[in-house]
Amino acid sequence: MTSQWKASLYAVLLLASGLSVQAETIVITGATVLDGTGSAPLENGLVLIENDRVAAIGTVGNIAVPTGAREIKAAGKYIIPGLMDANVHLYLEIPLVSLVRYEGRYHEIITEAAQVALKSGVITVFDSWGPRQPLVKARDAINAGQAQGARIFLAGNIVGFDGPMSKDFIPAAATMADPAFVKRTNALWQENVGRELMWLTPEQVRKEVRAYAARGIDFLKYGASGHTEMAFITFSERVQKVMVEEAHRAGITVQTHTSSVESLHMAIEAGVDLLQHCDVSGPVEIPASTIKLLVERQVACATLPLTRKRLGIEEQGAIWVSTKNINNQNLIEAGVNILLSTDAGVMGDSTESFFQKNRDGDLTELGQGHFRWFEAVEEMGMKPMDMLMAATSNIAKAYKVDKDLGTLEVGKIADLLILDKNPLRAAKNYRSIHTVMKNGKIIDRAKLPDNPILSRE
Amino acid sequence: MTSQWKASLYAVLLLASGLSVQAETIVITGATVLDGTGSAPLENGLVLIENDRVAAIGTVGNIAVPTGAREIKAAGKYIIPGLMDANVHLYLEIPLVSLVRYEGRYHEIITEAAQVALKSGVITVFDSWGPRQPLVKARDAINAGQAQGARIFLAGNIVGFDGPMSKDFIPAAATMADPAFVKRTNALWQENVGRELMWLTPEQVRKEVRAYAARGIDFLKYGASGHTEMAFITFSERVQKVMVEEAHRAGITVQTHTSSVESLHMAIEAGVDLLQHCDVSGPVEIPASTIKLLVERQVACATLPLTRKRLGIEEQGAIWVSTKNINNQNLIEAGVNILLSTDAGVMGDSTESFFQKNRDGDLTELGQGHFRWFEAVEEMGMKPMDMLMAATSNIAKAYKVDKDLGTLEVGKIADLLILDKNPLRAAKNYRSIHTVMKNGKIIDRAKLPDNPILSRE
Amino acid sequence: MTSQWKASLYAVLLLASGLSVQAETIVITGATVLDGTGSAPLENGLVLIENDRVAAIGTVGNIAVPTGAREIKAAGKYIIPGLMDANVHLYLEIPLVSLVRYEGRYHEIITEAAQVALKSGVITVFDSWGPRQPLVKARDAINAGQAQGARIFLAGNIVGFDGPMSKDFIPAAATMADPAFVKRTNALWQENVGRELMWLTPEQVRKEVRAYAARGIDFLKYGASGHTEMAFITFSERVQKVMVEEAHRAGITVQTHTSSVESLHMAIEAGVDLLQHCDVSGPVEIPASTIKLLVERQVACATLPLTRKRLGIEEQGAIWVSTKNINNQNLIEAGVNILLSTDAGVMGDSTESFFQKNRDGDLTELGQGHFRWFEAVEEMGMKPMDMLMAATSNIAKAYKVDKDLGTLEVGKIADLLILDKNPLRAAKNYRSIHTVMKNGKIIDRAKLPDNPILSRE
Amino acid sequence: MTSQWKASLYAVLLLASGLSVQAETIVITGATVLDGTGSAPLENGLVLIENDRVAAIGTVGNIAVPTGAREIKAAGKYIIPGLMDANVHLYLEIPLVSLVRYEGRYHEIITEAAQVALKSGVITVFDSWGPRQPLVKARDAINAGQAQGARIFLAGNIVGFDGPMSKDFIPAAATMADPAFVKRTNALWQENVGRELMWLTPEQVRKEVRAYAARGIDFLKYGASGHTEMAFITFSERVQKVMVEEAHRAGITVQTHTSSVESLHMAIEAGVDLLQHCDVSGPVEIPASTIKLLVERQVACATLPLTRKRLGIEEQGAIWVSTKNINNQNLIEAGVNILLSTDAGVMGDSTESFFQKNRDGDLTELGQGHFRWFEAVEEMGMKPMDMLMAATSNIAKAYKVDKDLGTLEVGKIADLLILDKNPLRAAKNYRSIHTVMKNGKIIDRAKLPDNPILSRE
Repeated sequence: MTSQWKASLYAVLLLASGLSVQAETIVITGATVLDGTGSAPLENGLVLIENDRVAAIGTVGNIAVPTGAREIKAAGKYIIPGLMDANVHLYLEIPLVSLVRYEGRYHEIITEAAQVALKSGVITVFDSWGPRQPLVKARDAINAGQAQGARIFLAGNIVGFDGPMSKDFIPAAATMADPAFVKRTNALWQENVGRELMWLTPEQVRKEVRAYAARGIDFLKYGASGHTEMAFITFSERVQKVMVEEAHRAGITVQTHTSSVESLHMAIEAGVDLLQHCDVSGPVEIPASTIKLLVERQVACATLPLTRKRLGIEEQGAIWVSTKNINNQNLIEAGVNILLSTDAGVMGDSTESFFQKNRDGDLTELGQGHFRWFEAVEEMGMKPMDMLMAATSNIAKAYKVDKDLGTLEVGKIADLLILDKNPLRAAKNYRSIHTVMKNGKIIDRAKLPDNPILSRE
Repeated sequence: MTSQWKASLYAVLLLASGLSVQAETIVITGATVLDGTGSAPLENGLVLIENDRVAAIGTVGNIAVPTGAREIKAAGKYIIPGLMDANVHLYLEIPLVSLVRYEGRYHEIITEAAQVALKSGVITVFDSWGPRQPLVKARDAINAGQAQGARIFLAGNIVGFDGPMSKDFIPAAATMADPAFVKRTNALWQENVGRELMWLTPEQVRKEVRAYAARGIDFLKYGASGHTEMAFITFSERVQKVMVEEAHRAGITVQTHTSSVESLHMAIEAGVDLLQHCDVSGPVEIPASTIKLLVERQVACATLPLTRKRLGIEEQGAIWVSTKNINNQNLIEAGVNILLSTDAGVMGDSTESFFQKNRDGDLTELGQGHFRWFEAVEEMGMKPMDMLMAATSNIAKAYKVDKDLGTLEVGKIADLLILDKNPLRAAKNYRSIHTVMKNGKIIDRAKLPDNPILSRE
Repeated sequence: MTSQWKASLYAVLLLASGLSVQAETIVITGATVLDGTGSAPLENGLVLIENDRVAAIGTVGNIAVPTGAREIKAAGKYIIPGLMDANVHLYLEIPLVSLVRYEGRYHEIITEAAQVALKSGVITVFDSWGPRQPLVKARDAINAGQAQGARIFLAGNIVGFDGPMSKDFIPAAATMADPAFVKRTNALWQENVGRELMWLTPEQVRKEVRAYAARGIDFLKYGASGHTEMAFITFSERVQKVMVEEAHRAGITVQTHTSSVESLHMAIEAGVDLLQHCDVSGPVEIPASTIKLLVERQVACATLPLTRKRLGIEEQGAIWVSTKNINNQNLIEAGVNILLSTDAGVMGDSTESFFQKNRDGDLTELGQGHFRWFEAVEEMGMKPMDMLMAATSNIAKAYKVDKDLGTLEVGKIADLLILDKNPLRAAKNYRSIHTVMKNGKIIDRAKLPDNPILSRE
Repeated sequence: MTSQWKASLYAVLLLASGLSVQAETIVITGATVLDGTGSAPLENGLVLIENDRVAAIGTVGNIAVPTGAREIKAAGKYIIPGLMDANVHLYLEIPLVSLVRYEGRYHEIITEAAQVALKSGVITVFDSWGPRQPLVKARDAINAGQAQGARIFLAGNIVGFDGPMSKDFIPAAATMADPAFVKRTNALWQENVGRELMWLTPEQVRKEVRAYAARGIDFLKYGASGHTEMAFITFSERVQKVMVEEAHRAGITVQTHTSSVESLHMAIEAGVDLLQHCDVSGPVEIPASTIKLLVERQVACATLPLTRKRLGIEEQGAIWVSTKNINNQNLIEAGVNILLSTDAGVMGDSTESFFQKNRDGDLTELGQGHFRWFEAVEEMGMKPMDMLMAATSNIAKAYKVDKDLGTLEVGKIADLLILDKNPLRAAKNYRSIHTVMKNGKIIDRAKLPDNPILSRE
């Protein structure tokens, strides 16, 4: 096969997958620009994009536009940075039937989920739990332009948790499958950082975490509470500190899964950068002293607030859910550094049925969850500009990727959305997506999946 | 695509699958011929095969051999009819992982199992439980020469039993899979003749069985005992009689699954042609009066005797196993019409592990089980010539396919084995297979699988 | 202790338990007498009781009344024979906690239940499943005048069923208790006639049933269907016939548990005297041919009809329940020999909670169930006189105890109720009990328990 | 009833239960005295007991003996302080059957267990987990002289654990019992200090623990690891410190249940007085740094070492068991303050069978376990004098009851054993019990139970 031929085949494949590859200079004119820094809106704005970066921002007439630039007229519209989601799970197909059916193809499911995110304006996602190798494969293919999809940053496993067919997730599945399948599948998640770490001394844990951090993860996440055993603590404070040290030593951020007031407090003291679902504390509200500590140390708090409508639908664990929303209210009022997050993923028919999931009401549906997040915090009185920053620059800073991402500033990667309506006026206006641009290229959203899981084979 | 091209592609495919298609005239000379009728061995025999049939049998020199016939010199060897197995299950991959993994490919597993049987000299198998449609697909492809494999006759479901993820087999699997998968998979077995028939009146049952008999099955099998509920009776005698009537009306034979002395007796009285594992009667020996009835009515009894060695290995259900062997002894001594059967199939790694099967000791391994059957009945004193007939002509008669199969007689289909050693001298000599011929063609056994389940992908 | 002293202590104990022992001559005058034979009501009636028997019946003025007879003036009231219930279970405390808590005291629970029955006008009960020895102990104590309570006739175990901690009832309980307790407790029910009989030949079954019939049971009951495995058949027809023979040989009646159309038909053909819940046939209606057979052979049918109100409450197994009521309608219309039955018992707090029983709606509550039975068949159009006979003389005849019981006729045992309202006018009038007389003695109902299970310790 | 009469009845009852109440002056002469302080053995010793205390100790001839003192001649024998067991569970009857059967009588089981301990020379036991109220009842009755038995100190529940029918012990039992029974029974253990404390903040925990400490417990025990979830941590370090503070504030000692190296380390840092089974650390050995800390802080370590014989019998959890013994070896060599403990209790037939306990091999059998403990540490090279102190004075000090107990010194309570053989020569010699004295009274061991649980009713 000649290399010329190869190249054109590649072009065909890229086209087929909805990728647009042509680099060009683009200028967006006339819109109100909300740059994500918290600055006042810039009316009649002009955003100039060269290659994949923002080359200039200003008002129309004050910026020189290169000849041949493609102009997008956006008067009456709003430009915001590409949205980010601080907590997604691109692979949720963990019931046994799905694990078997998609074995060897998990990266394809992940890619498809990343496309769902991108289609809905979430241009960057932080996958905080999943099988590391398939996630890396999907991330790298997207980054290399070999597949379309949201930009992925990934943690792989949650340190201290075992795989999908373990006591941490669906233990009964292990009784229905042969040991070899169970072992190799759980190992995709666990690798060297599963439950066995709970038995170890700090130095033994250090060694394992150091090895794991070297395997291409973008950030480290550990369980400070158990997953199914939510009231239990997983690691001593000194072990937690070792994990924080090792993440930082590897140049990545570190975060935790917590689900009780004490595990939350221990994680803060251990020095983590970010707390996942820090609004979850079982039946007991987070005390004011802990919220104060969050503010003082500016630990980033990814939250999972519910709208009042959803709160009504929720039937089980009523105390937990109401406690969670009280926590959210308190976190917002105290001025904690809050991040948009959804815990969202995509599910095929089989998995959805297994979990008897109610798609309509659920925060955790990729492509929808982030809109619901905005609506929930709006109800709780979060300021419109804070909401925008919670979904962009705050996340970029918390994950230490703000050199390139999170705001519309000269020199940053040109990830942006053009909205038809003003998102500062109403949370629901985030839904009015007109254009999605990633890496300076306009995304052909029509080519991205509507009904994911290998687009409902 | 031109038809010429098509043909050569077809040839390539056939070659690849180990099929030999050229019709020719073959003469086998010099061997001792055991024709399966019970007649005395014919020494220095000559068997002439034209197309797929036996054209002549006699002693060398007394039969004219057509010019150009291919001669196989077999002096010192033994020719017997192709072996038959009155009870196999070509599809045993029923644990959940396998059901998911092979969904849509069950017919391929079945074909592979039929190849394992053929390789070991079992040229005709009677599949007495399995998913009807995939079985029909595999059967028809083999019969049409599109795939290699033993000749299959099939029953489909056992009338009255539910599918693999039901109380009749592995009920817990249903709790681990989504309802849609469970339903469509169980339906592959159940169709319209599952457990719900137990609730019906005779005429309601008649209607369902008539419909099922019209769906391309080769014989009808119903459960007279439960499968997991082995002591229970499934159908009243009058319902059983209706099923017998409907099978005979459709021109096919009828058989039962029984597991207690009373279900056995009821089935005989209902008029079935054949009893599967009629040696199985739980902890209670079959009474002499019932054995007498078996002899009088010449109902065919497919049995599952164990060698003494195997009896020692068997750990669970010791009373059942010893009762079974006492029954076998009594059935042989009473002169019941016994058929070789094995309940055998093939299992992939996952299924084997799920069942923690001990391959070495088990009767029920396709490719091995029939050899063990011979060894077990030899230990019990069955006469050598009776053993041969139990594996050939008796089965053909019981299934009413003796017009074409079961003996080496002029006009019958040329299914035969050439053995290096005399099977009348020792049961183990059935293992000394030199040549397998099916439909007058010599099988290239080297091309058939050694380690089945899609040849261990 | 002197015997005089013993006697008076005995008297005290009898008084305390609500027994009235003094024999006397009683005359009841002025009421309308419904004698249970189906004869027209006798107005201004007189019933003379001497010792425990009916000495005379007629109209006031036409019968000589002995001097010193105690007169009960009952003008405007109604006298009916003591009610009978063809199917009760005086011991239902089978969850593990109750089995342990009451171990050694089951007969006391049974006695208490018999008192609840008596209090509500059910003077004779037929206990069709329970632990034989404690039942015998309670029955004999009541018959000997050592304890108060309804007259008990008992079957002990249902032949073919295992005990309360077996697959036939609550199998999981066996995993929570030590084997010795499980064994001795199950054995109280099973004795020699448990599930193991399903494996046996007719003659082997005969031996066991003969032995069991000799142990003081009043009638024999066998399972023709399974209990938890309701669609399965338990015994072949010829084994059923053996059981019928043995019961009749022992001079007792024989009945079955059936739950499908075919098990029902088999039982009729086997020649049983009585069918328990013959209206239960799973999801399939009893065919007209079987109902016709019931009429022809006059087999007694104990039924469990539901009122329309109860039918509405019933949520689970909707098809079964509606099928059952269709069957009831058909049985009544065809003129089958129907008997009042309730399947009723009493439950303590623990057992009630275990079964999450809804006391209010349930037919099967001793003391209430028979009233609901009348109301249900009234809705279905059963004639008032047939209802009365279904609850009295029909039951006595079916159980072959009509020489002494079931009607108000001279020479029979004086079991009777005086009602304030006319039971022929409305089913609910059976609730208007004024007086209960058993064995010619008036029962002090106030002393019988309101809230049973050792009167809520 | 006159008070005189009452008194004599009381005397009868006391006699019947093996109590000896007469106060007297006793002198034991001629034995070698090992006083438990670590001092050299005193040969030809004399121990004078007045009332319940040691009045004098010295060599024969150097101590004045009061007139009328009862002399026990013990030449050639050995006197040691009464043995103590730092960890027993007097009530182990937690399977459902036992919970039901003995409901309301748990204190009787406890008393009986205390008698078994006393009979075997264990005069003081520390019950570290059980139902508080029945334990208090038994303790107080023994202390008041109303029942015989070892002196009991008790913790009640382990703070953070739920009751016997919970996830911490036998969860399946809860599915077999009615909710009311489950609730009231679990509550006997849990009271206000169950699993729900894991959700609370430090100050919320403080309040509950303070309340619990006021309910008559003798020491506080909390779970630092989970019970069934052995690798998990139960409480944060700051919550643990609060519990330590509250125990000390209440004037009692505090101890933990730990099962991993990190939970052990956290407990030490939290400042506990005593560690139960501090030799248990799952599959990972206790690091030298933690052992060093144990020595430095002189935290008392109650251990559960196994003899080599027992190590061979142990089949399950082989790694855990071998790790435990390595830990024991290391703890002894490092000079950690070790206490004899057994985790022992008594079990009736039913409970024993439920747990399939092997009585012969098990450390945890009250009456035998302490002998096995001596034998195990002897194998590991513990010095004879250290062994004696581990079973006496060390325990008294660790529990801060050394003012009265733990050594044979003037003024202390006269709890002692007279042994026939020298316990410093061989561990097995602790079995050679000649006399048991508690509170200055000689115990009639023949009257104490051999086969406990209400002496095998």
